[in-house]
Amino acid sequence: MKSIPGGTITSPGGFVAGATDAGLKTRGGLDLGLLYSEAPCVAAGLFTINRIKAAPVLLCQEHIASRKAQAIVVNAGCANACTGEQGLEDAAEMASLAAKRLGLSPADVLVASTGVIGIRLPMELIGAGLEKVALSKEGGHQLAQAITTTDTLTKEIALSLDVGGKESIIAGIAKGAGMIHPDLATMLSFLATDAAIDAHFLEQAFRKAVNLSFNMLTIDGETSPNDMVVILASGVAGNEMIEEGSADADAFQAALTEVCIYLVKSIARDGEGATRLIEVAVEGALSAADARVAARTIAGSPLVKAAIHGSDPNWGRIVAALGRSGAEIESSMIDLFLNNICLMKGGSPHPFDENEVREAMGSDEVPIKVCLNLGSFSATAWGCDLSEEYVTINSAYTT
Amino acid sequence: MKSIPGGTITSPGGFVAGATDAGLKTRGGLDLGLLYSEAPCVAAGLFTINRIKAAPVLLCQEHIASRKAQAIVVNAGCANACTGEQGLEDAAEMASLAAKRLGLSPADVLVASTGVIGIRLPMELIGAGLEKVALSKEGGHQLAQAITTTDTLTKEIALSLDVGGKESIIAGIAKGAGMIHPDLATMLSFLATDAAIDAHFLEQAFRKAVNLSFNMLTIDGETSPNDMVVILASGVAGNEMIEEGSADADAFQAALTEVCIYLVKSIARDGEGATRLIEVAVEGALSAADARVAARTIAGSPLVKAAIHGSDPNWGRIVAALGRSGAEIESSMIDLFLNNICLMKGGSPHPFDENEVREAMGSDEVPIKVCLNLGSFSATAWGCDLSEEYVTINSAYTT
Repeated sequence: MKSIPGGTITSPGGFVAGATDAGLKTRGGLDLGLLYSEAPCVAAGLFTINRIKAAPVLLCQEHIASRKAQAIVVNAGCANACTGEQGLEDAAEMASLAAKRLGLSPADVLVASTGVIGIRLPMELIGAGLEKVALSKEGGHQLAQAITTTDTLTKEIALSLDVGGKESIIAGIAKGAGMIHPDLATMLSFLATDAAIDAHFLEQAFRKAVNLSFNMLTIDGETSPNDMVVILASGVAGNEMIEEGSADADAFQAALTEVCIYLVKSIARDGEGATRLIEVAVEGALSAADARVAARTIAGSPLVKAAIHGSDPNWGRIVAALGRSGAEIESSMIDLFLNNICLMKGGSPHPFDENEVREAMGSDEVPIKVCLNLGSFSATAWGCDLSEEYVTINSAYTT
Repeated sequence: MKSIPGGTITSPGGFVAGATDAGLKTRGGLDLGLLYSEAPCVAAGLFTINRIKAAPVLLCQEHIASRKAQAIVVNAGCANACTGEQGLEDAAEMASLAAKRLGLSPADVLVASTGVIGIRLPMELIGAGLEKVALSKEGGHQLAQAITTTDTLTKEIALSLDVGGKESIIAGIAKGAGMIHPDLATMLSFLATDAAIDAHFLEQAFRKAVNLSFNMLTIDGETSPNDMVVILASGVAGNEMIEEGSADADAFQAALTEVCIYLVKSIARDGEGATRLIEVAVEGALSAADARVAARTIAGSPLVKAAIHGSDPNWGRIVAALGRSGAEIESSMIDLFLNNICLMKGGSPHPFDENEVREAMGSDEVPIKVCLNLGSFSATAWGCDLSEEYVTINSAYTT
């Protein structure tokens, strides 16, 4: 498995993409895009668990039930959420317009939207914009741009792996920034692969990868009504079909998980107002659920996030977050490390050089490790620091 | 029932208090205090559900099991949390020192601490400080000062009520500011009354009042290891014992709940960096649990809080928080009001004058009302806006 320099969602065989400035974002820029596979694809998707589901999410859940799809149409600037019946009609119309443009049936098109909640999709702009989108092998980069909102960077990756002697590529793009918390899929992310793969196995493998990545990401504890992670597999790599138990299943799973974790770390690093990536590893938990909830709670704690923003080795906040997480703990057993420096040992303060820790905390990535010393389960979660800028972004503008 | 102007924790008969600057807070000021009842009291307390419990919490739980107490000793500046066996010894020693000073048994003394986690209580300063505390009927104001940390205001109230022809007073003080979320008692708060009251009824009534007040308060989703709410009842009012079903039980319950809600609103208004009180009322829920979780989730949403800070009528964020709360909802049934102006009706956007809403949102209190229109249960939660100042407070200093 190796990384493809400059790789993106159109790196796998058979995929083209493109985007345009349809006038949907108030700040301008690319905001409407298409991903198209020349071959029919098997597809899997995971969607927000927010009970308020945006119209495009409801439509996608319907369209993906067949485990097939051939295109994704996506816009930024308007979430088409909380828009009632009108919103559902608009999402269906958006699928139809894209299908017409691509010569597909609307049922083969997935629809995604991101942006402000509670305003109607400007369908004339969508229609006119779709006419302008030019599809190409390089268009993946444009698509990655078009789905961003308050993101400052695009999130793109492509990995190549050998499947039974054939080269196959798994690639993905994502948008992140805010309203992100680990309740199922938690933002927009699209993945593509040219591997020939059994639809049922793809779904399983995808769920597993998302569980170890997107579901362990928190920016601010919010879950948007528009979240989705979708993968399309075109099969044009010509490999022998990957199925459960087949020789390449594990390698595919590993590459898929790596793509997801890369995207998640990119999202965390570029969280609204973020200056640092926080990686929280919890070890020695009594159960996987305990390890996961503990890691996620610490990564999501506003006081921990603010302390890390200030390079403040205020480890009591980490322990307080752990304590309220609900995970089984024995306070006298806990060891805690910040940037690999021990701050707490067996539940009591451990002497440390404050300046050394402050300096270590100044780096781009701040690793926190908590050893519960009770069992054998572990989990890793990702998040970012909390800065004044997060508040400014979210109070000064309607985002 | 009427409010006593300038009333505080020492307004009820039989209580005296005092505080001193023992040198525990880095910024100086009163930081060590005593509340003392001349008569033995029945007592009830509710404590943090954080699995990391500070030493004073563990000690209080032991001492209050008898449903009796006669004094509270409290310090700010050091939480005595995550301090291992040494911390437990220090908390016990603090109770003993206070008991000796007051001529009580240590078991009659409750201990509370608030401040930085993970450092040892400076016992010499505590010992020397306790010698200096002068107790008086006016000392309640000093005690209210001594328990503050990042609070900008003290929180004090006293209500007078008639119980069977006798005047009785219920009073309380609290500290708030940060690390506050509705998991049982969620900060330090002490209440006192001179009513003669059955210990079992007091416990019940107190739990009910806390459930409608402290457990509906969120500042930042954090639950500290030191949280406690305690009430002492001296009985010196000379009323006929209040018990379950007795004539004055409802009046006492109502006054107790009002004292708690007043303290909670004071804490929310003075949350770290807060400029506004947010009051979230959820109506028409299918169950009380649904109404409570929905109200609390909205009040705690960082995006809702940031929008309110910016007077931004971005109601989609309120609905998104509602959707992820877990409460049963029917999206097409939801009505939403901000400052009594309808923004969403039957799940769809409702036209409104943005300038009118922005102006209304500029006031000190921002009421949000969500009607689920599914059932008959309702709940109210309190919180505050999220400002850049919250991040500054929590990243620039070890608090």
